[in-house]
Amino acid sequence: MSAEAAPPPPHAADRLLAAIEAKRAPGCVGLDPVRDKLPASCPRGGPDTPLPDASERILFFCMDVIRAVAPFVPCIKLQSACFERLGPSAASHVRSLTEAAHQLGLEVILDAKRGDIGLTAAHYAQAAFPDEQRGPGGAGADWLTINSYLGEDAITPFLRPAPPSSHGAFALARTSNPGGDTIQNLQLKDGRTVAEAVGEMIARIGADHVGERGYSSLGAVVGATKPQDARRLRAVMPQQIFLVPGYGAQGGGIDDVLPCFNSDGTGALVTASRSIIYAFKPDDPKWMDSVADAAAQFADEVGRAVGMR
Amino acid sequence: MSAEAAPPPPHAADRLLAAIEAKRAPGCVGLDPVRDKLPASCPRGGPDTPLPDASERILFFCMDVIRAVAPFVPCIKLQSACFERLGPSAASHVRSLTEAAHQLGLEVILDAKRGDIGLTAAHYAQAAFPDEQRGPGGAGADWLTINSYLGEDAITPFLRPAPPSSHGAFALARTSNPGGDTIQNLQLKDGRTVAEAVGEMIARIGADHVGERGYSSLGAVVGATKPQDARRLRAVMPQQIFLVPGYGAQGGGIDDVLPCFNSDGTGALVTASRSIIYAFKPDDPKWMDSVADAAAQFADEVGRAVGMR
Repeated sequence: MSAEAAPPPPHAADRLLAAIEAKRAPGCVGLDPVRDKLPASCPRGGPDTPLPDASERILFFCMDVIRAVAPFVPCIKLQSACFERLGPSAASHVRSLTEAAHQLGLEVILDAKRGDIGLTAAHYAQAAFPDEQRGPGGAGADWLTINSYLGEDAITPFLRPAPPSSHGAFALARTSNPGGDTIQNLQLKDGRTVAEAVGEMIARIGADHVGERGYSSLGAVVGATKPQDARRLRAVMPQQIFLVPGYGAQGGGIDDVLPCFNSDGTGALVTASRSIIYAFKPDDPKWMDSVADAAAQFADEVGRAVGMR
Repeated sequence: MSAEAAPPPPHAADRLLAAIEAKRAPGCVGLDPVRDKLPASCPRGGPDTPLPDASERILFFCMDVIRAVAPFVPCIKLQSACFERLGPSAASHVRSLTEAAHQLGLEVILDAKRGDIGLTAAHYAQAAFPDEQRGPGGAGADWLTINSYLGEDAITPFLRPAPPSSHGAFALARTSNPGGDTIQNLQLKDGRTVAEAVGEMIARIGADHVGERGYSSLGAVVGATKPQDARRLRAVMPQQIFLVPGYGAQGGGIDDVLPCFNSDGTGALVTASRSIIYAFKPDDPKWMDSVADAAAQFADEVGRAVGMR
């Protein structure tokens, strides 16, 4: 466990790679909590305790999920929408969950897919990342997902100057949803696809933010459901860490995610959400064990796939 | 003022057009409040009142701006990032400002540029729009800006079934920032630009949500700084209301926004932000008069440009 005891590297990409190696698993658990899927035993209040509201129940559930998966994966991803819909009280819960995850040595991605420019983008960055000029309330995340459609002005405000590039962003290149093809897969006059042009832009911007291990604090989102595209995008973006959704519930298998990695088995982080956080029967009082088992199995699959186990 | 006394039409696009006609001005005031630009006389607390925090000062400022501009324009746009960065307490302020604007008969656009798919998108819609199944805390907006890069799965969850399509969305097609060219202006093999392909997708999806006046509750964001592109996009999207940023402080003039309108002078809503909400000297105690004057002048410019005055 010496990798956990040493102070974490300051550069976001170096830090994420170290966390992946410490767990020997390039895997991330996504928390997309919804009320009607919570386990029956998740706190509902009782005679001596006030009834928690929906956002508090979701907070308790997520805290338990984070504790359950922390021994097995290096990273969690919080889906911002699931908290935003519950109103202002839930927004502060994101911060609490981030702090709990950091206590357990986990990297935290805020999946908010923010996409705006200039000062507005800087405001989103302030809301997502820790900042000495900020009061309490920001999410305090290490990484944020962002949208690339507005171009460079919507990307650079989310990158901290190097060194140390202590926080990072994953910019959307090729998403895992069926509708993503409509725009991202269009053929350009010069033979590239739109997603490849986006990838080249990400690679160019990210080149100014590369850490000691050769990866940038600007990563890219590349879905597991498009292995052919992933192969081409891997060539276009050698210095980007790929955040890879679509594994498990969305249909992507282990063979589909392999092209997202560089040949040395580094450079990608596979995420799984529903297949892990709901890996229990609703009335199972030991539901946390089921979540832990699912996380352990997922970590084993992705760790073996890239030769880390 | 009979148009204001009659019950508003239920379809979002019909309602917005009626509001524009009642004010004879296709103009929207954008609220992008930042702390260091607040007027000196904006409440700071005093001997008998607790000192308001930054988010409360911004709330007071925005309330006063909304009151100042309400007689002149049909619509305000709230920049979500400016509130999110202030933490959870400011998130509830968005709801308060929306309610105040509705009391004054204004349409409210939440400028959050959300971009995600399926259930996650449905969560963002719940956070943005009024919903009987929602507790307090949602923004309660009439319109939301959204990102088109993920395709149809990231657009339809934001549209209410027609009839009545009571809430609407503006999907990004061509943004006003310089960096927008990098992706949006790429040439496709078939001769279109990426922005035109996005426009065709928006037009196709929006066709299922057209109101009595011929406009869809799915509109499009088309920047004022690209008049040539606006002309082509207007042809591609005849049923979309264009939300047009870039006027004023960003450099777009009245001639630049005209191609965003259909030939009958309908179909676009020009937004101006900094040039109106900061139209005062910091130490001016009558700063609200200056904001009102700027809003009146803006309304006159856009109203005359399309023959409404």
